[in-house]
Amino acid sequence: MSMPTHHNSSHKTTITSLDLKAMTKDVEVAEHHGGGSEYAAKDYHDPPPAPLFDAEELTKWSFYRALIAEFVATLLFLYVTVLTVIGYKSQTDPALNLDQCGGVGILGIAWAFGGMIFILVYCTAGISGGHINPAVTFGLFLARKVSLIRAVGYMIAQCLGAICGVGLVKAFQSSYYDRYGGGANELADGYNKGTGLGAEIIGTFVLVYTVFSATDPKRSARDSHVPVLAPLPIGFAVFMVHLATIPITGTGINPARSFGAAVIYNKAKAWDDQWIFWVGPFIGAFAAAVYHQFVLRAAAIKALGSFRSNA
Amino acid sequence: MSMPTHHNSSHKTTITSLDLKAMTKDVEVAEHHGGGSEYAAKDYHDPPPAPLFDAEELTKWSFYRALIAEFVATLLFLYVTVLTVIGYKSQTDPALNLDQCGGVGILGIAWAFGGMIFILVYCTAGISGGHINPAVTFGLFLARKVSLIRAVGYMIAQCLGAICGVGLVKAFQSSYYDRYGGGANELADGYNKGTGLGAEIIGTFVLVYTVFSATDPKRSARDSHVPVLAPLPIGFAVFMVHLATIPITGTGINPARSFGAAVIYNKAKAWDDQWIFWVGPFIGAFAAAVYHQFVLRAAAIKALGSFRSNA
Amino acid sequence: MSMPTHHNSSHKTTITSLDLKAMTKDVEVAEHHGGGSEYAAKDYHDPPPAPLFDAEELTKWSFYRALIAEFVATLLFLYVTVLTVIGYKSQTDPALNLDQCGGVGILGIAWAFGGMIFILVYCTAGISGGHINPAVTFGLFLARKVSLIRAVGYMIAQCLGAICGVGLVKAFQSSYYDRYGGGANELADGYNKGTGLGAEIIGTFVLVYTVFSATDPKRSARDSHVPVLAPLPIGFAVFMVHLATIPITGTGINPARSFGAAVIYNKAKAWDDQWIFWVGPFIGAFAAAVYHQFVLRAAAIKALGSFRSNA
Amino acid sequence: MSMPTHHNSSHKTTITSLDLKAMTKDVEVAEHHGGGSEYAAKDYHDPPPAPLFDAEELTKWSFYRALIAEFVATLLFLYVTVLTVIGYKSQTDPALNLDQCGGVGILGIAWAFGGMIFILVYCTAGISGGHINPAVTFGLFLARKVSLIRAVGYMIAQCLGAICGVGLVKAFQSSYYDRYGGGANELADGYNKGTGLGAEIIGTFVLVYTVFSATDPKRSARDSHVPVLAPLPIGFAVFMVHLATIPITGTGINPARSFGAAVIYNKAKAWDDQWIFWVGPFIGAFAAAVYHQFVLRAAAIKALGSFRSNA
Repeated sequence: MSMPTHHNSSHKTTITSLDLKAMTKDVEVAEHHGGGSEYAAKDYHDPPPAPLFDAEELTKWSFYRALIAEFVATLLFLYVTVLTVIGYKSQTDPALNLDQCGGVGILGIAWAFGGMIFILVYCTAGISGGHINPAVTFGLFLARKVSLIRAVGYMIAQCLGAICGVGLVKAFQSSYYDRYGGGANELADGYNKGTGLGAEIIGTFVLVYTVFSATDPKRSARDSHVPVLAPLPIGFAVFMVHLATIPITGTGINPARSFGAAVIYNKAKAWDDQWIFWVGPFIGAFAAAVYHQFVLRAAAIKALGSFRSNA
Repeated sequence: MSMPTHHNSSHKTTITSLDLKAMTKDVEVAEHHGGGSEYAAKDYHDPPPAPLFDAEELTKWSFYRALIAEFVATLLFLYVTVLTVIGYKSQTDPALNLDQCGGVGILGIAWAFGGMIFILVYCTAGISGGHINPAVTFGLFLARKVSLIRAVGYMIAQCLGAICGVGLVKAFQSSYYDRYGGGANELADGYNKGTGLGAEIIGTFVLVYTVFSATDPKRSARDSHVPVLAPLPIGFAVFMVHLATIPITGTGINPARSFGAAVIYNKAKAWDDQWIFWVGPFIGAFAAAVYHQFVLRAAAIKALGSFRSNA
Repeated sequence: MSMPTHHNSSHKTTITSLDLKAMTKDVEVAEHHGGGSEYAAKDYHDPPPAPLFDAEELTKWSFYRALIAEFVATLLFLYVTVLTVIGYKSQTDPALNLDQCGGVGILGIAWAFGGMIFILVYCTAGISGGHINPAVTFGLFLARKVSLIRAVGYMIAQCLGAICGVGLVKAFQSSYYDRYGGGANELADGYNKGTGLGAEIIGTFVLVYTVFSATDPKRSARDSHVPVLAPLPIGFAVFMVHLATIPITGTGINPARSFGAAVIYNKAKAWDDQWIFWVGPFIGAFAAAVYHQFVLRAAAIKALGSFRSNA
Repeated sequence: MSMPTHHNSSHKTTITSLDLKAMTKDVEVAEHHGGGSEYAAKDYHDPPPAPLFDAEELTKWSFYRALIAEFVATLLFLYVTVLTVIGYKSQTDPALNLDQCGGVGILGIAWAFGGMIFILVYCTAGISGGHINPAVTFGLFLARKVSLIRAVGYMIAQCLGAICGVGLVKAFQSSYYDRYGGGANELADGYNKGTGLGAEIIGTFVLVYTVFSATDPKRSARDSHVPVLAPLPIGFAVFMVHLATIPITGTGINPARSFGAAVIYNKAKAWDDQWIFWVGPFIGAFAAAVYHQFVLRAAAIKALGSFRSNA
């Protein structure tokens, strides 16, 4: 019975000695701060990489349940956020309304995106891992945290959920939906495509880097003074990126969000710019995966056996 | 050998082995991320369903204390939130004031609702479970987490508390209360009843789904990388839904809140629309209970014995 | 055999059995939700009431260190919050500035007060208990959590700190400080003294009720699904009350804050209304202490031995 | 018998008794509140001070990884925050736009700075300690938490990261960057240099005091009712200081942030005021280190052996 670190661990024999050690560590590391503390031995266990193809997954209810959870979460994400965007624009339209300050503001829109990711990651993390974003799924697939079949299934579920969520907003806000841009991501006037792509790449990097940091197995073993309240910083990462890039691209950093809005809004400009909101986030997720796995976790260097800190 | 899962567990004999195992699990699962990890065996225990009628409950001080706590919490909830709404509208009224940006804004109103739920759930969770909302009580009753008698008692306490809370606002803001709509929920101009009902259903679904996720027994056993800071995501769920649906219905998702404001405001329009703010939230809570119990927890499928992942 | 509940517990002999039991509880209660769960036996221990006079306290460095910490924390609290108020008003003054929306808004002011309490309670909780407010000190004194001598010492330190904090703002903002009201609490036009007093009473009740809930010994024993992140809900309580009552009194709920601003601003109106900001908060703290100790903790009823739930 | 306090503790023999004791403490102290509780014996261990020069550090990959992490984090910090500042100013420029309420507001800017520090400290704490600010590094160096060589390395990495982050913003926002002040820190009109310096000193004091409080070894031993969610209060401290001092200096409290913006903006006024944003934060960090080490931790007095509370 080894430490339950494998994804499907079923053998749990050496509980007493082993896990007391694990608990011990939780206590002791609380006293390390300041610089990066080294450990004499590797005191955590990486889960083995997920297989590329895992046919057995398809026979399990938990796989389909995860797809349903991703679908529902992405639906709710788009529903609440796009409804907030449309509601804000209708309330502050000078043609309708004298009160230009009456809406929730761009700050409110940024909160809507960040806050929904916080609660939806919190709610679905135990069911599907709480991705709700093809770029996050792609990054975790690159790091071999999910199988290819799961990654593809999640992305399809996310895109379908996003379409349904925006569709609901259009049904509820029929008179305003088209008028106020349908929540679609488009490059703002005055910015070239390179800037838009760069903004999406760096924004997604911030998000996926936070996701990797929040779910690092090392964290529980070593960084217990930084507790594992993963969904909150992930939600804040989304919030911050929206504050910064809403003026440039409306902020995608989530291809399902951009795709769902484009399908329902269905105007030429939204489709013309659509590639930015797939290529940018996937490059950003790739960069974050490389940074986390090869620089911070030093996977490459460890393999070479150099630079290792020995006790 | 039973895990301490019963509400009134009094037998605690096999402490050492059993609970070390429980603590162990807390540590081990911190290393699962990415996909949804399966466990070979069921490693948590559902509490037995609450009885429908439990006469013994009526003899216990803790039952009445819970009613008082729900009453006081709902009173404070309505007092702070409706006072914020009235204060905001009086500060930004162009007839009184040149400073249209002077108030807390719709963002501030959304914070008032979400933030109060955060602190009140935090404060009353240990006394009454921290419902503060008949729709939440209804959802937890459907999931057999509370008895019928407790559910009815809570709803009455919540409605009385809401009436008193709004009454206090009217007493404090007599000159503004009626003028600025009394904090009552009404369908906004330009939206039909179906849209209002739909907005209330989905909004309550988001809230009650978060409540179920935050209080799932599985969470403590399996999802320890998503720590149990339940009141914060519940408060954020309320905050998000307000950002999205204030322009449509003013956001109810809490029948006690809508009822209390209608009783004190007492105008025809608020009463005409009142049914939306009971039917919508109850349907939303029902849908969330079904989704959580039958899809995510797969109660139905488990009963059939199919799809089960065996080790 | 005593649980480690005494303030100066030095005997720790029966560790193994005793504390395993305590840890056990942490695990088991994570599975109770929904209704208020009863326990067969009292599974937590109240610390003994603090003595009224404790001369020995005066001989300890930790007592003076706590006074210094309260002084510094209240100084920083008033400095940051009043500076935010003055800065906001100078930025949105139509006489100076065309941009009426340029400041942080009332929402930003409410965040300044709530956020500072969050971080200062977080920082000083381990040194002084993190009161930073004579009303909180008064409430905890009534509940016999602090001695009389400590309560008086804290209040003096808090008032001196508040005066110095506001004095710094006046030094930094000499041209604006008097012009924009000096951050002093005054009853707004159109509200009578009873309303102002009532608003202060209920606002302080919300704050001190949250403080009691967050520091209840029962919480760690029973409510582990509501984790003990005490400073965050306490900060949010302050934030919420500011959203609601800034239009009425400017929101005191902290006599040191009102007193410090009045001393430095030193205008007749601020002094005339000053009593509201002492009487209101002290009544609110008294009500919260009574509610928590006699209703929620049922101190009176337990003493009578009636209504007790026996196993 | 040693508690697991050394940075490289490799001897873990007395696990059972020792760490059960440590866990025990976690439980017991949860019941101390109100006043500052004294302990009979010192129940925590300070890590030994970091050496001034530690040549061995230079041979370890973890040192260079920490430099990279500080560089990347500071780059992302400046990129997101300065982009938010420029975007806000372009959206609310009356010359371009009729909607003066259209931007994120100063509140949104304050959130951008505070929120980024929250997520970046969260992400990098386990790699580099999460400084992202030369003033924080200076404070921790004074407290002997990091070696001189690490402190200098971090500061250089932070300044280079800041320059690159602001450079990216200039590349993305070429038409607006210079027009809207480049995110550079300058003393606002109407304030003298002493006020600006004072504002920077106290603002940095608030930040570094929070950092010290959040990473105090005593915290884990004694203050477990104030849990160690360090990055959140640190982020809030940055948020609060921005609310208060944006009108005065634009808020530096981070020399790398001020230096990076000055290098890219490169106008006389930004360089003339630059010294304020180095001298102020370093004095503030020094004051916070002295306050924490000599007053709150009473290092000096303990050395003298007086005032010690004995059991």
